[in-house]
Amino acid sequence: MTIGKRLWAIAEGYIPPYSHGPAPQMISHEAVCILNAGDDSAHVEIMLYYESREPVGPYRFNIAPRRSCHLRFNDFEDPEPIAADTPFSSVISSDVPIVVQHTRLDSRQAENALLSTIAFAGDQ
Amino acid sequence: MTIGKRLWAIAEGYIPPYSHGPAPQMISHEAVCILNAGDDSAHVEIMLYYESREPVGPYRFNIAPRRSCHLRFNDFEDPEPIAADTPFSSVISSDVPIVVQHTRLDSRQAENALLSTIAFAGDQ
Amino acid sequence: MTIGKRLWAIAEGYIPPYSHGPAPQMISHEAVCILNAGDDSAHVEIMLYYESREPVGPYRFNIAPRRSCHLRFNDFEDPEPIAADTPFSSVISSDVPIVVQHTRLDSRQAENALLSTIAFAGDQ
Amino acid sequence: MTIGKRLWAIAEGYIPPYSHGPAPQMISHEAVCILNAGDDSAHVEIMLYYESREPVGPYRFNIAPRRSCHLRFNDFEDPEPIAADTPFSSVISSDVPIVVQHTRLDSRQAENALLSTIAFAGDQ
Repeated sequence: MTIGKRLWAIAEGYIPPYSHGPAPQMISHEAVCILNAGDDSAHVEIMLYYESREPVGPYRFNIAPRRSCHLRFNDFEDPEPIAADTPFSSVISSDVPIVVQHTRLDSRQAENALLSTIAFAGDQ
Repeated sequence: MTIGKRLWAIAEGYIPPYSHGPAPQMISHEAVCILNAGDDSAHVEIMLYYESREPVGPYRFNIAPRRSCHLRFNDFEDPEPIAADTPFSSVISSDVPIVVQHTRLDSRQAENALLSTIAFAGDQ
Repeated sequence: MTIGKRLWAIAEGYIPPYSHGPAPQMISHEAVCILNAGDDSAHVEIMLYYESREPVGPYRFNIAPRRSCHLRFNDFEDPEPIAADTPFSSVISSDVPIVVQHTRLDSRQAENALLSTIAFAGDQ
Repeated sequence: MTIGKRLWAIAEGYIPPYSHGPAPQMISHEAVCILNAGDDSAHVEIMLYYESREPVGPYRFNIAPRRSCHLRFNDFEDPEPIAADTPFSSVISSDVPIVVQHTRLDSRQAENALLSTIAFAGDQ
């Protein structure tokens, strides 16, 4: 099974700075969900783009063959954590085809809100 | 009328583990909506990909010609039910063109939240 | 200015059967937003596909050149109104390129929820 | 790094006319998020399309190389502000490849709702 592309982008990015409700489910989070449906490991690199500084990254992740991987930007650490309440964009590249979707859970107010979209797939 | 592709993927997948509000409408659910606009039956197979185990499936569904089909992952049973509160991804394949959209209703908190996105269409 | 395609599909479709909040803004609604950025009128036809009956339509709409058009499925009347609480899909065709987006406002519970996605564009 | 297209459209557009919660985060807003991942400045022009008047624009924005830019339609001023509670669509063009995503935060009711989708990419 091969499906996906090797280059993706998410123009939206924002970690809500506070939360209501029990952790970890109801912590406000910004997530990137990645499917590696193929039979080879995916070496994934994520670059972050900001409004007023140079890009940061790559953040590196290995995804085993035939695996789903739901990453929270909140948990990114190396080369540096991502500040909350700060707009960003991201570019996700992989050495094998992957599928990328962007999801946010925002629990800043008493009830949670959700958004999700397929990311933009480059030609590669 | 022919529209769609024969191979789709949804990188996000998550069945919220609890709900508020009257069943069945307000039960938290993860749905895949499929349109078979053509004049032939669609034989659809859905494979599920997890974060730390091998893929499960195929789950098989037949969709009659010129029909919409809204499936809840919550209701999948064969070869096995899908655990709640467990991240997954899915690949949807069909022998005829279909259109696939992903929707979640999350009623874990007192008011419901919604997300939806067109799925990723493969080249086929 | 020309942008868009002449054939689109939305696999999701559902008119929530009740609402909270002041009309018309907070009436639960299922919408299809269409952009005709070109210099010719768009003659748009929408076919509805159901889970257990034959397709209904076409519903016909003319969109003037260089105009946006936000339609609520709730308001469709000819050839017949659309029942609430009933899953459907839709296919949108036009004689000139258009851009189509699907949005729902669900106010069944006390606070509203939203979803939106670009529709699926056919090859035409 | 080059990713994106030079022509995009968002068929949905609507600035909710009121809000609950602290400004600026919880002000109801309609946003367009743009990534310019390349090494050249992006000269972006946004045209707005309405239901019953001629298009307005272009609204012009420069996005530096390797930068994210989250714009709120609420803040557009030149050639004119955008009225709230008024449906519109938008076309976003750039002289270099960009990636465009559409997001709304709606806080008309006590708790906020969110929607987001990748915009429609033209062939250019």
